[in-house]
Amino acid sequence: MPDPASAPLSEFDLIRQFFTRPVHKAALGVGDDCALIDGRPGHQLAISTDMLVSGRHFFPDVPPRALGHKALAVNLSDLAAMGAEPRAFTLALALPEADPAWLAELAAGMLVLADAHGCELIGGDTTKGPLTLSITVFGDVPGRQALRRDAARPGDDIWISGTLGDARLALGDCRGEWLLPEPDFTIIRPRMDTPTPRVALGMALRGIAHAALDISDGLIGDLGHILTRSAVGAIIDVDALPRSEVLGAQPLARQRECVLAGGDDYELCFTAPAGAREAIAGISRQLGLPLTRAGNITPEPGLRLVDRDGNPYAFGGAAFDHFAS
Amino acid sequence: MPDPASAPLSEFDLIRQFFTRPVHKAALGVGDDCALIDGRPGHQLAISTDMLVSGRHFFPDVPPRALGHKALAVNLSDLAAMGAEPRAFTLALALPEADPAWLAELAAGMLVLADAHGCELIGGDTTKGPLTLSITVFGDVPGRQALRRDAARPGDDIWISGTLGDARLALGDCRGEWLLPEPDFTIIRPRMDTPTPRVALGMALRGIAHAALDISDGLIGDLGHILTRSAVGAIIDVDALPRSEVLGAQPLARQRECVLAGGDDYELCFTAPAGAREAIAGISRQLGLPLTRAGNITPEPGLRLVDRDGNPYAFGGAAFDHFAS
Repeated sequence: MPDPASAPLSEFDLIRQFFTRPVHKAALGVGDDCALIDGRPGHQLAISTDMLVSGRHFFPDVPPRALGHKALAVNLSDLAAMGAEPRAFTLALALPEADPAWLAELAAGMLVLADAHGCELIGGDTTKGPLTLSITVFGDVPGRQALRRDAARPGDDIWISGTLGDARLALGDCRGEWLLPEPDFTIIRPRMDTPTPRVALGMALRGIAHAALDISDGLIGDLGHILTRSAVGAIIDVDALPRSEVLGAQPLARQRECVLAGGDDYELCFTAPAGAREAIAGISRQLGLPLTRAGNITPEPGLRLVDRDGNPYAFGGAAFDHFAS
Repeated sequence: MPDPASAPLSEFDLIRQFFTRPVHKAALGVGDDCALIDGRPGHQLAISTDMLVSGRHFFPDVPPRALGHKALAVNLSDLAAMGAEPRAFTLALALPEADPAWLAELAAGMLVLADAHGCELIGGDTTKGPLTLSITVFGDVPGRQALRRDAARPGDDIWISGTLGDARLALGDCRGEWLLPEPDFTIIRPRMDTPTPRVALGMALRGIAHAALDISDGLIGDLGHILTRSAVGAIIDVDALPRSEVLGAQPLARQRECVLAGGDDYELCFTAPAGAREAIAGISRQLGLPLTRAGNITPEPGLRLVDRDGNPYAFGGAAFDHFAS
């Protein structure tokens, strides 16, 4: 398994190079789940932006209510990954045509989720164009308690919320890579279409977790960001990674591919010292959300995968790249 | 001239209806140049978002440096219209391909302007898709001094910064609606390609102006927003509206069309009491920027246009609608 930090630059990385510069006024700039700027008294304001393009991030015929939910959910997930409390968002929308019924559904999906998190729509822009949604979301973090990617320390446990791989498993069915039994597909489809941002978890982990991020592009690639920015390595037990019953009934190779490299789950991956295990178990009980230890942060760089028997596991997949064709 | 407040709903307005709701936590929501939320101690944070789509807001072959400048400039102009001091921005970018030379130029155009205004790029998202830029910009306003659209009062003077109509005149040449002499086109083209956001003016007008906005869709439509939200009317002397020498050499009907309904100038339109005339003249001198009185706010609703002789002027044009085809 190559060290993500030394992998060759993708086109994606090249683009980022042009637009990534050190910040002076902001507390944290490009490269984490959110940027941080001075916020209201005693707080930092966490800010994240995402763009969803039709045919790339969602199927053109996706139900608009699910699309509205997901577009906001992926942004709330970035706030969750920083431990921020959602506060407001803006929406920029390009539409090929203005279909009132479709728009009413889109708005409903988005605003029901927004209301559930007390996140107000405060501004926007609408224009004619290929279907594209860009949301910018704002959240409050008290003091300096933001969960940053650069805060992992050797010896930390590596934790995963919920289960991984279901969104990828559902996508594979939609793409015709494999065919699931209808009842199984029905169970896991919401994991792809209407993911649940782990907002309450992120807020509960303030002062307990060290580093955190949300898993949007697959665990391997995303964990790599924590390792690079924290200048540490990790060992992960591939077979300890949490998965649903549906995924657990699939062939082992497919299970491993889905949990390691499947994107779009929007679970949190976080690191915490061993002394925090009891507190984390308490948070899990309180939220009714499984939290699973799947590995450790190591001082030596690189990500080592092992299987259930402790043998090295060589994974051939790649993290998701929005510019791969 | 119909009252903009009673005009039939466009598709554009229909869309906005779905997404416009009263805010509770934010100080100001959808409907002004920026939203306002609680900011760092003693300040409000002004937030605005814009989406620019290839073929709609810019020609596909626009020089990337000019595009980078304009994409940020139109957002800075929204901050200017609130009297906010630029602080940071995020960029979401969909690109059909990653061309490093093109991207370097785009970044240069954007970041030179950002540096000139101390506005840091703090976050972003990049994906493959039809060329689309969405920027969200953040600025500070001390106290409650934001220049809002709902603050115009009967008797206020109506002021216009710089000159109007040049961007529309240049666009008409590009579209083949008319042909300008080459030297004239060269002079006014930058007004279309690389507009200047009136940031220093907006900040100087805090505590002096009542209402303000930036003219992006044409004076008639944009001033209509102030009138509607302030529940007032206005009288405008069409021939007192400031225009460049190049535009002033055009046929009078074209001049009037460009100054009244030409979009993309990004000048400020603001209202202020007569007692502020001296202060405003001082700001004009200090900034080296012409500021022109072109009318007055009236208690009775509706926008009345008069010509240089004081006769009613009937304008047949329409404000720019991004959904008009």
